[in-house]
Amino acid sequence: MSWRDRPRCDETPAWALLQAHAQHHFSAAAGGDAFDLRRVFADDARRFDDFSAPAPHIFADLSKNLLDRDARALLVQLARECRLPEHCAAMLAGAPVNGTEGRAALHPLLRLPDSGDGKRDASQIARSTSADRQEMLIFSERIRNGDAFKDVVHIGIGGSDLGPRLAVQALAPHTLECTGARGPRLHFVANMDGHELDGVLARGLDAARTLFVIASKSFGTAETLLNARSATAWLRAQGVRDVAPHLVAVTARPDVARAFGVGRCLQFADGVGGRYSLWSAIGLPLAIALGADGFRALLAGAHAMDRHFADAPLESNLPVQLGLLDVWYRNFLNASSRCVAPYHHGLRRLPAYLQQLEMESNGKSVDARGRPLAVASAPVIWGEPGTNAQHAFFQMLHQGSDLVPVEFIVVSQPAHALAGHHQALIANALAQSRALMLGQVHVQPHLRFAGNRPSTTLLLDELSPASLGALLALYEHRTFVAGSLWGLNSFDQWGVELGKRLATGIEAAWQHPTADASLDPSSAGLLARLRRH
Amino acid sequence: MSWRDRPRCDETPAWALLQAHAQHHFSAAAGGDAFDLRRVFADDARRFDDFSAPAPHIFADLSKNLLDRDARALLVQLARECRLPEHCAAMLAGAPVNGTEGRAALHPLLRLPDSGDGKRDASQIARSTSADRQEMLIFSERIRNGDAFKDVVHIGIGGSDLGPRLAVQALAPHTLECTGARGPRLHFVANMDGHELDGVLARGLDAARTLFVIASKSFGTAETLLNARSATAWLRAQGVRDVAPHLVAVTARPDVARAFGVGRCLQFADGVGGRYSLWSAIGLPLAIALGADGFRALLAGAHAMDRHFADAPLESNLPVQLGLLDVWYRNFLNASSRCVAPYHHGLRRLPAYLQQLEMESNGKSVDARGRPLAVASAPVIWGEPGTNAQHAFFQMLHQGSDLVPVEFIVVSQPAHALAGHHQALIANALAQSRALMLGQVHVQPHLRFAGNRPSTTLLLDELSPASLGALLALYEHRTFVAGSLWGLNSFDQWGVELGKRLATGIEAAWQHPTADASLDPSSAGLLARLRRH
Repeated sequence: MSWRDRPRCDETPAWALLQAHAQHHFSAAAGGDAFDLRRVFADDARRFDDFSAPAPHIFADLSKNLLDRDARALLVQLARECRLPEHCAAMLAGAPVNGTEGRAALHPLLRLPDSGDGKRDASQIARSTSADRQEMLIFSERIRNGDAFKDVVHIGIGGSDLGPRLAVQALAPHTLECTGARGPRLHFVANMDGHELDGVLARGLDAARTLFVIASKSFGTAETLLNARSATAWLRAQGVRDVAPHLVAVTARPDVARAFGVGRCLQFADGVGGRYSLWSAIGLPLAIALGADGFRALLAGAHAMDRHFADAPLESNLPVQLGLLDVWYRNFLNASSRCVAPYHHGLRRLPAYLQQLEMESNGKSVDARGRPLAVASAPVIWGEPGTNAQHAFFQMLHQGSDLVPVEFIVVSQPAHALAGHHQALIANALAQSRALMLGQVHVQPHLRFAGNRPSTTLLLDELSPASLGALLALYEHRTFVAGSLWGLNSFDQWGVELGKRLATGIEAAWQHPTADASLDPSSAGLLARLRRH
Repeated sequence: MSWRDRPRCDETPAWALLQAHAQHHFSAAAGGDAFDLRRVFADDARRFDDFSAPAPHIFADLSKNLLDRDARALLVQLARECRLPEHCAAMLAGAPVNGTEGRAALHPLLRLPDSGDGKRDASQIARSTSADRQEMLIFSERIRNGDAFKDVVHIGIGGSDLGPRLAVQALAPHTLECTGARGPRLHFVANMDGHELDGVLARGLDAARTLFVIASKSFGTAETLLNARSATAWLRAQGVRDVAPHLVAVTARPDVARAFGVGRCLQFADGVGGRYSLWSAIGLPLAIALGADGFRALLAGAHAMDRHFADAPLESNLPVQLGLLDVWYRNFLNASSRCVAPYHHGLRRLPAYLQQLEMESNGKSVDARGRPLAVASAPVIWGEPGTNAQHAFFQMLHQGSDLVPVEFIVVSQPAHALAGHHQALIANALAQSRALMLGQVHVQPHLRFAGNRPSTTLLLDELSPASLGALLALYEHRTFVAGSLWGLNSFDQWGVELGKRLATGIEAAWQHPTADASLDPSSAGLLARLRRH
């Protein structure tokens, strides 16, 4: 059976078995026999070893999840019945898994190492990708080591922003180590809201020595073009006569970018999705910050995870196990969100990155064959870094009314020398997962904690380019796994189009109050108030 | 009937009526007659006017919510049956509404204007609060206008961090306008993770001219004390012999702070909850940034909302209407989260602030009398600024499987001069709420949008100290309203204590592997791996 004809999760024998299993062992109806983490740890000395999994750069402890061996075996059966291995192989081989756009999903290809052998055997697309990367890294090294530019402003939104911004933050100590005080300062502008660009331009930028990176796959993104035009106007207003050398485009449409007036184009393939594009020339600011070797280390870390995903048996395949767990919580235990709590200041924007990755990939109600979904798909992904989150919303995780699986991300080695901080930080992460599980019996009701609340802990040795690459690739593949079982095309995003189109209509109506009749009364009423100002 | 004996929502006649109404008109069981936003706008020309509400500094459009007149009337009946007006009056009058801690909730008192009359009539606590404020503002003006300090580093976490950080970001243009280049730079450090403090200290701070603000109500917060100790060590290592003049405490425990070695204490009352403390001396960094007049304008805006909450009839009382809507979505339409999308770069951290405000206040399962709750309480609050969010998770809001009410926050006037940005930004906000409601019929399944998805739009004329004060007070009172109906004490946070205690145990075990036997196998297994590094 081909990956194209794979059954959807709810059409398989395993699905019904999972429903029965959840009902009998994990629901209120199961009464006192319902699954309890405290009891299973007491009963099963092997649970930690059996429910933890090593993967490249990452060790995952899944043992504190509401999952038993039978459910896990049924989930693996579900994956087989859904032809997940075939779908995975097709995706990694560059088959056109993005049906509505008639494209492959090329992000794993971007991580293939350049090697003499690889080059000789490589497909045309692999050779082209390798050439794009080479060109980007030569350019980034020139900006990084040259002194033409003191400031680099990266303009992009969504996938052209979240990945580079996260990676530059996460790897800040590596960038400082590498560049000392020499490299250019990096700035990011995403929002159409002019307050963001305005704030960046107020940081004492010298126009003559400022480079704007304009990152848009289509080179038609409204926000990015608006910011790029305002940046160009600013350059001119600051006395720069020839702006082209100050503008570099990162795009799959160099023709459009050249017409805009950029001095240089860095290219990536159309088959690279926006939210999967950090690995392409979209990673330019990261390459400037880290250097070419650091950027290649990021790719190598991601590639190691690609190999693990391709080769490891389903039972010990970490992206598969996490994706199956996501389906389990979503469809059998009715969890509608997942909280991501990175215990690392550098990963403070990981939840925002994952919101796009998971909710844009799998926030859909129609399957890849156009049939309405019968089950819930992507949950809400949300979170903040620990320990901050402990002083904000953890109250609700411990004593609130809902089941919210939590994902702790812990990094063993710090990249700073402040004494006493890192061990205390990690102890807090471990204590939170322990507290969620153990709960507390108390005579005073407000001091009672129900416990039996689940979490996953992902442990990284250090936060390096390689481990970050592996972590992000892990999340990409996990998202693919859940989307594949739900029968989705995880690589399109048609849900963003309607709002874009309606925005044009509202901007037009703003100038012509007579057009209000074409709007709904609420939009017209708001617009009428806005016109008064 | 006193506020103490008020019925809980699920014990009222209105509750059962609301259940029946939701079942008959808002559920799948209602079939083709189920409430549809498109139909009700077509049928009811007055809907926008009747479902929108002015309040101080804010205009709210509630008309795009899944709510009809009958449901609204029943919710108001519910509020009356739950004695919300009495509870509200008691809270505002300083009654001990925080039962488990035997305290009042003094944040509205912090916003009372200083006036000759007010002072004469004021209670001792009001006089003391006014004196605390006066002392803080004199100090902040000295730091702001003096040249002793070039950098101010605010160290605090949770309520001692989120409010000041949000407000300084939101009002950045006001701070620049006021101070030009003169005032000190502001920095914030919250996380126990040393990477945050390390990164701030790497910004070229001159120890001789750096002031650390140590903000902790108890002056016992582990993160804050650890960062304060590391800051002190840094001062000494940089050659500062007398560190006390470089350390100012903001606390309700000046005795403990003085023992720590600070040179100055700014105080606030014990009855001010951490997440409600921006209005107290915790607002010091904001007062430095804005100046005393700006800080007073923030308080005045919040006070105007307090008056509205105290005086407006339930039917036109915005905090009440929003709190009732929260209960409606949560308990009758089964929404488990609410998305907050501020269409303003300055409000990008508002969702994080609201996570603490709402989830720490109402993320509980036991009511104020110690009885287990029978209904769901605080939902997950999450979000990112627009238009960024449109390029991230809006796919899921438009085409995902779940009901997620969205809250758009729109500011009419920008504080920058970049042409073309602001109107486009607002048009996008309006277009998104319109698209969520209208949906789209299409022959191709992946281009179908179900529509009938709800949103609220909050419209501010400008983002000023006064309007920000009103907005945050609106959210405070809305949180109180929902918590009151659920029967909760919204002012304690016992759920954060267990994790704190267990962290001490894990830190101790780290040094003594023999103690692992006292841990669960998962925590012990993770600790064993961590020790290897």
